[in-house]
Amino acid sequence: MADLKFSYENLKKFCVDIFCKFGFEEKQSEIITDVLLLSDLYGIDSHGTQRLLRYYKHLQTGLIKADAKAETVFETPISAVIDAKEGMGQLVSYDAMNLAIEKAEKSGIGMVTVKNSNHYGIAGYYAKMACDKGLIGISVTNTEAIMVPTFARKAMLGSNPIAVAMPADPYPFFFDASTSVVTRGKLELYKKLEKEMPDCWGLDADGKVNTNAPHVLDCIAAHKGGGILPLGGAYEKTGSHKGYGYGMLCEIFSSILSQGLTSDKTYSDGKALICHGFIAINPNLFGDPDAIKAHFSSFLQDLRNAPKADGCDRIYTHGEKEIIAMEDRLANGIAININTVKEMKGCAEGFGMNFSDYFGNIADNI
Amino acid sequence: MADLKFSYENLKKFCVDIFCKFGFEEKQSEIITDVLLLSDLYGIDSHGTQRLLRYYKHLQTGLIKADAKAETVFETPISAVIDAKEGMGQLVSYDAMNLAIEKAEKSGIGMVTVKNSNHYGIAGYYAKMACDKGLIGISVTNTEAIMVPTFARKAMLGSNPIAVAMPADPYPFFFDASTSVVTRGKLELYKKLEKEMPDCWGLDADGKVNTNAPHVLDCIAAHKGGGILPLGGAYEKTGSHKGYGYGMLCEIFSSILSQGLTSDKTYSDGKALICHGFIAINPNLFGDPDAIKAHFSSFLQDLRNAPKADGCDRIYTHGEKEIIAMEDRLANGIAININTVKEMKGCAEGFGMNFSDYFGNIADNI
Repeated sequence: MADLKFSYENLKKFCVDIFCKFGFEEKQSEIITDVLLLSDLYGIDSHGTQRLLRYYKHLQTGLIKADAKAETVFETPISAVIDAKEGMGQLVSYDAMNLAIEKAEKSGIGMVTVKNSNHYGIAGYYAKMACDKGLIGISVTNTEAIMVPTFARKAMLGSNPIAVAMPADPYPFFFDASTSVVTRGKLELYKKLEKEMPDCWGLDADGKVNTNAPHVLDCIAAHKGGGILPLGGAYEKTGSHKGYGYGMLCEIFSSILSQGLTSDKTYSDGKALICHGFIAINPNLFGDPDAIKAHFSSFLQDLRNAPKADGCDRIYTHGEKEIIAMEDRLANGIAININTVKEMKGCAEGFGMNFSDYFGNIADNI
Repeated sequence: MADLKFSYENLKKFCVDIFCKFGFEEKQSEIITDVLLLSDLYGIDSHGTQRLLRYYKHLQTGLIKADAKAETVFETPISAVIDAKEGMGQLVSYDAMNLAIEKAEKSGIGMVTVKNSNHYGIAGYYAKMACDKGLIGISVTNTEAIMVPTFARKAMLGSNPIAVAMPADPYPFFFDASTSVVTRGKLELYKKLEKEMPDCWGLDADGKVNTNAPHVLDCIAAHKGGGILPLGGAYEKTGSHKGYGYGMLCEIFSSILSQGLTSDKTYSDGKALICHGFIAINPNLFGDPDAIKAHFSSFLQDLRNAPKADGCDRIYTHGEKEIIAMEDRLANGIAININTVKEMKGCAEGFGMNFSDYFGNIADNI
């Protein structure tokens, strides 16, 4: 019995209530919940309710300050820099992207960078916020250093995701990916499965390619060198310097332009202090938004219709798999790992909440 | 005797004169020459004088129209769309990036897309133009379809480079890379060397991974399917969908926002009609440009100083290799392949130019 299935509605009610118990106002809890559950709906299980307890721990240790009041420290009609004051990443990011959207609706573009923040969930959530308003949305964040630059043996960049969303029919383009070849969660999965990793994923403490997930994870945990490779692996001939380059672009639009901490200096002295970047672009800067959307939708359909490789029956455009996952999970429930359920239940009981009020007797026997 | 060395100054004088013979005005010839020779100086030999004859052929067949007058078809204070009217890619791109720079200097950002254009040389040239003015420069272009999306067997995207340059000391950050794992030139090199390709580079006509460069090149030439893989190779586990995604970002900022032709529809009926995108961002949108530059420079130095992988003695930041190549080539000359020299000489003589007026007797015996 590895997973239990919960309905989206029940999970939402539970998460909103428990984030209130963690010290957030109801409106704030709703925002945080919305970010986490979009991740669960989209099939990005690593960034959903699975993280609930981790956020709680970070609130307890003071890494995240629930009562932080973010401050806009620099602003122009099309840009801003926000100091998150060590608050919850989702909250400052929600406000930052809304500010970018407001600027884009008024002036064509809005670019907002954020410093001194915490983990903000999936990058794509904020790109989607802009996309839902008919804009192109871009969202990036740096993270704890985990990615080793080409020819190095120490992690200097984060998983540094870049997310871009743009309106299209029948569903938007939604691209959300780390610039490292994979994230740490994938190594943890391979460890669990006792599976050998592809030789473009990890480096050991000497900077040598290593396909043993537990070993690479140990190297990362011990901060003794090693880590995850950029997209493109370890060698220039496989494009390592390109993934490293995309990681740098993420760093430029998060930590550099906000003058915050670069990935290699975050998560130190009990503070995360990571940085984000948000851009909203109004397609009306380039012509009729409906015509642009139709042009884009037609190209996406051409991609789906292109001849398939032997053994493949479908070509996906970015965001399609997320839509498929969401439709399934809204209809059939969201599967949550039993250990995560135990954590959620234990945490709820600690706050005097009755788990069965939310989920019935589904978790009675765990 | 595979290469001959020429001085930058002599090559420059020659190229300016020969582009005048091709039908361009002197100022135009200087711009085209500057783009080509930066490529040679930076060590990107595939995009320099090596291409001279190809441009000439494209002018002869009418693919490129030397007398085209590009037209701005849409404009706002921070954006524009230009119709290149099938003119020389370098010329419309030079003007387009200058327009983006002008807007960025006045309003913080300039974003210019171009449609109905031709090959524009290295993407990085235009990113560098903005960087030379203290701005962040971004340049993208779509190309003839050469990249096969994940799970497909037909090329639908171009090599779709993304270039980004940003001021830093002692030299700028300069990232210029195709979003395909390699470009066609790399396959041609492997064919020449009779070397087996890595298994993340090419697909055959059935969409199966193939490591034989001549075979994959034949598939591409015959338009019977197959092509070059995205950065990340053929499989999702190695990040194929990510390279495909970056290729899509390039397409969005070139062909989609300009409403021009996507890569899969270019180079048809004797017309190229490719699209470019140029963005200049003023760092003063985020604070003091000098402070941002210092912050960035310090991070780049930290990257260079990071512990090296076993067997590696240097970590490069993006643009460093280009600076090293340029210093060498300015001091010691630019090596040009003997076949390219023959082409240049033959072409010059066809126009009644005396090759030795430019290069002395260096090419007398070829």
